[in-house]
Amino acid sequence: MSFWHPVGMNALISDLTKVAHAMADAAGAAILPHFRGNDLNAENKASDGYYDPVTIADRAAEKAMRAVLADMRPDDAILGEEYGAQLGSSGLTWVLDPIDGTRGFVAGTPTWGVLIAVGGDQGPVLGMIDQPYIQERFWGADSYAVMRGPLGEHPLATRSPRPLADATLFTTFPEVGTQSERAGFEAVAGHVKLVRYGMDCYAYALLAAGQIDLVIEAGLNSYDIQAPIGLIEAAGGVVTDWSGRPVHDGGRVVAAANADIHRATLDILAGHL
Amino acid sequence: MSFWHPVGMNALISDLTKVAHAMADAAGAAILPHFRGNDLNAENKASDGYYDPVTIADRAAEKAMRAVLADMRPDDAILGEEYGAQLGSSGLTWVLDPIDGTRGFVAGTPTWGVLIAVGGDQGPVLGMIDQPYIQERFWGADSYAVMRGPLGEHPLATRSPRPLADATLFTTFPEVGTQSERAGFEAVAGHVKLVRYGMDCYAYALLAAGQIDLVIEAGLNSYDIQAPIGLIEAAGGVVTDWSGRPVHDGGRVVAAANADIHRATLDILAGHL
Repeated sequence: MSFWHPVGMNALISDLTKVAHAMADAAGAAILPHFRGNDLNAENKASDGYYDPVTIADRAAEKAMRAVLADMRPDDAILGEEYGAQLGSSGLTWVLDPIDGTRGFVAGTPTWGVLIAVGGDQGPVLGMIDQPYIQERFWGADSYAVMRGPLGEHPLATRSPRPLADATLFTTFPEVGTQSERAGFEAVAGHVKLVRYGMDCYAYALLAAGQIDLVIEAGLNSYDIQAPIGLIEAAGGVVTDWSGRPVHDGGRVVAAANADIHRATLDILAGHL
Repeated sequence: MSFWHPVGMNALISDLTKVAHAMADAAGAAILPHFRGNDLNAENKASDGYYDPVTIADRAAEKAMRAVLADMRPDDAILGEEYGAQLGSSGLTWVLDPIDGTRGFVAGTPTWGVLIAVGGDQGPVLGMIDQPYIQERFWGADSYAVMRGPLGEHPLATRSPRPLADATLFTTFPEVGTQSERAGFEAVAGHVKLVRYGMDCYAYALLAAGQIDLVIEAGLNSYDIQAPIGLIEAAGGVVTDWSGRPVHDGGRVVAAANADIHRATLDILAGHL
């Protein structure tokens, strides 16, 4: 990104990273009491007596993140999944999904995550995926990506190139999207070694961590994909739409460990656009 | 189970539980250095230079568990996924799968687990599922099930009855098994609210923890299912084959949160046996 002066880049990234950590901490604290029904007291029940923990947790987490921004970065714009857009004056926008993977959340799987990205019109400069139950956090900016988890903290790098026949591919649902989107996914799936499902945003973290080669999804919103883009690009990967164009505004996503496997995947998807 | 005297039951269960914890601790310590390629030094490479972390970890974990048994329960029999059967004289057999979910393991997902069960010819009296990366352990025996994880330790109980239309169903692969097994699974899937994939043995832990209603799988071995049986039955659930018969020797599995939803599921599967 080039809309700020390169001299200020390191200091800015450092500040944005600090803010993102504070936001993820606040979001995790807001969500965890509701995960797996650990907090079923009356105050969390809606007036009709129906307890909807994921909606309550989703909103509480986005509010908590917006409070951090109001305090630490009041001039930045915000686009959040739950509370929409707030204008800013800095040229930077934070793009937030407090709980990505709500269906995983309600089933108790620790595959959901807090997604935090910040950037400009051309996409994110920083992306963070946080899984507070496992206490794992993945973040990246400016060609440097890191994870912190149960086994400590270490830098991340995506996988080196390998043939599709040796690759591992993830998506969340076997249906993927429309019938033609499913056909596109299955065309790629037919070429790879291992296909797995059900990981929600955690699949993008595994891609950044060099564990898998591809994630293919469809029908995503900007707040679903901006954090993965920031993280994966910083770790050395490539994230575009199925035609190879920028995808930070959402749509059909190919996230790839490297340019070679990205190209091989787009070649197959070209027959399904 | 009735092959030992009831007076000795509590003390025996207590001893078996203590041994199972020691085995899970030993297995986790053997596996974690190999998870996500955290230990790529030369001594772990095979003589042909090929590094197969899951096989190395699998074998190291089973050896570690057998060493605990040799020390603490030398008269018990052992049936392990990696090293086969060892005879005993106590009437009890430990049934071990050091890494259930090896494909999840190689993809970096923390959905694999160490499976430990102990019992007799009629099935397990104790079952344990351990996920050492998340540091979550689920175990149960004698109508009492517990989990210990990132948020502490608490007792487990399966879900109360609800209509299939409100239920959550898990299986690991959309293919499930043979074509007719897939058709049986899909017949049930068509009746439930949410279907999720890719959780390996972790799905059985979620069932014991009251998060989901059903797990349906096919083609399982005894060492894949005995630990889930012991755990889930202790938490209040029901685990049988697709005809309602005991399944501790493996086969097609229905694990259900309660007798009502188990019966409703068998009614649908009856058309696909």
